[in-house]
Amino acid sequence: MADNNKITPQNEDYSRWYLDVIREAELAEDSPVRGSMVIRPYGYALWEAIQSGLDRRFKATGHVNAYFPLFIPKSFLQKETEHIEGFSPELAVVTIGGGNTLEEPLVVRPTSETIIGHHYAKWIQSYRDLPLLINQWANVVRWEMRTRPFLRTMEFLWQEGHTAHATEKEAREETLRMLDVYVDFAENDAAIPVIKGVKSDREKFAGAVDSYTIEGMMGNGWALQMGTSHYLGTKFAQAFNVSFLDQNNVTQLCHTTSWGISTRMVGAVIMAHGDDRGLRLPPALAPIQVVIVPIWRKEAERGPVLEIADHVHASLRDEGMRVKVDRRDDQTPGFKFNDWEMRGVPIRIEIGPKDVQQQSAVLARRDRPGKEGKNFGVPLAGVAQETRTLLHSIQENLRHQALQKRTDNTHRVTSYTAFQDVLREQGGFLHVHWAGTTQDEERIQKETKATLRCLPMENAKEEGQCVLTGKRTNQTAIFARAY
Amino acid sequence: MADNNKITPQNEDYSRWYLDVIREAELAEDSPVRGSMVIRPYGYALWEAIQSGLDRRFKATGHVNAYFPLFIPKSFLQKETEHIEGFSPELAVVTIGGGNTLEEPLVVRPTSETIIGHHYAKWIQSYRDLPLLINQWANVVRWEMRTRPFLRTMEFLWQEGHTAHATEKEAREETLRMLDVYVDFAENDAAIPVIKGVKSDREKFAGAVDSYTIEGMMGNGWALQMGTSHYLGTKFAQAFNVSFLDQNNVTQLCHTTSWGISTRMVGAVIMAHGDDRGLRLPPALAPIQVVIVPIWRKEAERGPVLEIADHVHASLRDEGMRVKVDRRDDQTPGFKFNDWEMRGVPIRIEIGPKDVQQQSAVLARRDRPGKEGKNFGVPLAGVAQETRTLLHSIQENLRHQALQKRTDNTHRVTSYTAFQDVLREQGGFLHVHWAGTTQDEERIQKETKATLRCLPMENAKEEGQCVLTGKRTNQTAIFARAY
Repeated sequence: MADNNKITPQNEDYSRWYLDVIREAELAEDSPVRGSMVIRPYGYALWEAIQSGLDRRFKATGHVNAYFPLFIPKSFLQKETEHIEGFSPELAVVTIGGGNTLEEPLVVRPTSETIIGHHYAKWIQSYRDLPLLINQWANVVRWEMRTRPFLRTMEFLWQEGHTAHATEKEAREETLRMLDVYVDFAENDAAIPVIKGVKSDREKFAGAVDSYTIEGMMGNGWALQMGTSHYLGTKFAQAFNVSFLDQNNVTQLCHTTSWGISTRMVGAVIMAHGDDRGLRLPPALAPIQVVIVPIWRKEAERGPVLEIADHVHASLRDEGMRVKVDRRDDQTPGFKFNDWEMRGVPIRIEIGPKDVQQQSAVLARRDRPGKEGKNFGVPLAGVAQETRTLLHSIQENLRHQALQKRTDNTHRVTSYTAFQDVLREQGGFLHVHWAGTTQDEERIQKETKATLRCLPMENAKEEGQCVLTGKRTNQTAIFARAY
Repeated sequence: MADNNKITPQNEDYSRWYLDVIREAELAEDSPVRGSMVIRPYGYALWEAIQSGLDRRFKATGHVNAYFPLFIPKSFLQKETEHIEGFSPELAVVTIGGGNTLEEPLVVRPTSETIIGHHYAKWIQSYRDLPLLINQWANVVRWEMRTRPFLRTMEFLWQEGHTAHATEKEAREETLRMLDVYVDFAENDAAIPVIKGVKSDREKFAGAVDSYTIEGMMGNGWALQMGTSHYLGTKFAQAFNVSFLDQNNVTQLCHTTSWGISTRMVGAVIMAHGDDRGLRLPPALAPIQVVIVPIWRKEAERGPVLEIADHVHASLRDEGMRVKVDRRDDQTPGFKFNDWEMRGVPIRIEIGPKDVQQQSAVLARRDRPGKEGKNFGVPLAGVAQETRTLLHSIQENLRHQALQKRTDNTHRVTSYTAFQDVLREQGGFLHVHWAGTTQDEERIQKETKATLRCLPMENAKEEGQCVLTGKRTNQTAIFARAY
């Protein structure tokens, strides 16, 4: 049951706020196996909306889905040196099957480049078989020590795209195309503006030539890596002999890519938009876009009020909106208002006896608290139209607010002293000139806990001095505390 | 590449036919881990259509989706005695995580009653929390010795519904409601008529009070269990203390159900409808419902033919049909005809130079071979309408043919001698009066390889003599060879 006092205010303790919202909104809960979680129906509905928004975009860009096995022979992971080095500490290993000890232990997939490489080698013979554009929706397991629901769990759900191409050029184009698909989804569906960039060597995917990322700013100014897209070169193709005969009958190695977004995205939506009252869900992803709360005191009022509520419900539903009537008769309207606010439903429609008389309704938007966000006396005939307009406006406003917040909390600094001061006093993203090494990144993390989120792709690259080394460079970087 | 000679005729070797079709239509292939498979894009698209047909029905009957962990502490499975006895020989066990030996081994879920029971115990406090109606789409692992793609694999994909209720009556109603949802899906989407029935004690789910099943007849007369729905009584509720305070403030145990359909359903669709040319897919599930094959000889014909093909493509797509133009220029029309027939596409539209002249097209249906199934000179303006009608007719015809086949191959026998003769000489389903024991079932399986598929629910129960024991009974049973 909802009780806003059960949610710790964000500036009192942001981490507790996050866990409180997840518990109170019934998004997820810990499972008895350490580090893994149950995704409860409301949280899963959010994931279904994310899946649907992504899957539609993947198919529109020519990809198809397939499914590869959960278990991978350990020897497969060892075929690509950097890959096994990166994933080795995180593996869950099946050693017993059907009561017997296995001859070769099976790894529970932490990602699927290796098993997919094995099969692509069979499917690809000729340049005519390329490009091969496949995505998989699956669960993966990485044995994480410090977990946090949605953001980092031992098992998580994700999609992993794996493509093979005839040339480096095509593979690099695909890598960036899918990064742009992620940007489009993040900004238009999740209403979270993101920074596109390249990962530094230190942060890139184990086995990638280049890793690209979209980084979003959360409510506390920290960064969250929301999706990645990797150009893998011919590394996995070499390890698994994924090759083809080109138009001149010459054998060539394929250039491959992989790209993924996970249930982490649910955490991003919670943290990018949530406030002290709880969730604020972007209409494009909200499992319930509109909740109708009928209000009556006398029993005689109940019937007419519910009749109008049902009528409005049907008219919105017929227009394709996700709408629900809260019929609970053991809860007060006030309780229901708080409850649905906490669950982040974008619009509440109140219908009481006065509205029955006037054939009207009250519309309240989640993103504007109090009377300012209320629209009184909307004629019933206009409710559907008004609701649709409002949903659009809320979607825009959430993105606008998130962008404003990111702009306000992104700081240009030119000295390492300023870097440390600003990070300590204000937090947020530090946008700096950068010509440092992996060791320099390690030093900064040790001294400030900030990591290099990415080398942004979209900024004008005027020359400046590296914030740490003082070297002249036209490359910039975003540093931030990150999940 | 398609080559119908690569498909063994059904009556030469049905098992080889099945594997040939799966390979040639690129539905799935073996993975290097014994018993597990890769579901290739065309096979996965079929599964996506199955998921969508089921998920829509689950939501329409008030269910929501959630996600529970892949790993279950081994001690959980041991809490329900029959459950662990049934599943113990089939478990895959993780003993190493993050490089360390685990204190308690983790079982890779073979099914999720136990972990879900654990969480339901927390979520359910009062009668107001009931019924709880949740479904999960997931992968599960059962260490099978003899595997066959889709029909029995070590890892498979499925949905498992898990519901909790206040009373036995409500839980039993739910069990049968979901069985009916399965019947509706099987008959209307998969075009496979099924027999609803109760499983005998020997065949029921480990831990169930009663297991219900839908059984379909495959092309060789064998039975396939296509979905099951279980009334679990209070067994799991007791093991995990899933209880609630009723309206009189008395603590009561919940009555629970579970029900599932898996990637087996893909195998059912292959075997119930396929013929010697390959797949025949019901339009409701076909990833491609209509393929357009443009035909030209001279280069000058190519442009006009493709223009019409694209026009037809757009008009069908705009009406929501799943349609594809086969633009390959390295294959002959004849090759393409065979290829798409083998892949089971319900309708082929041929457009050649003559059709351009006459502004018409040729429609060929997969379920009626040769000229008989061809519709010549359909005016372009009427193609969309005609295609829609034809898809409907093919869906009906496939179901009709499957029903006819089942009727023709279901035999009433009244003596065990006749039972054995008919099974040996004709195969199919044997519908008999039955008052036998588990030992009697074992004897029949040993002597004939047939198993008791179910005790049908829908037959009039006139009295007769048990086919084995001669006892008077009004209960009947279906016996058959089964996958």
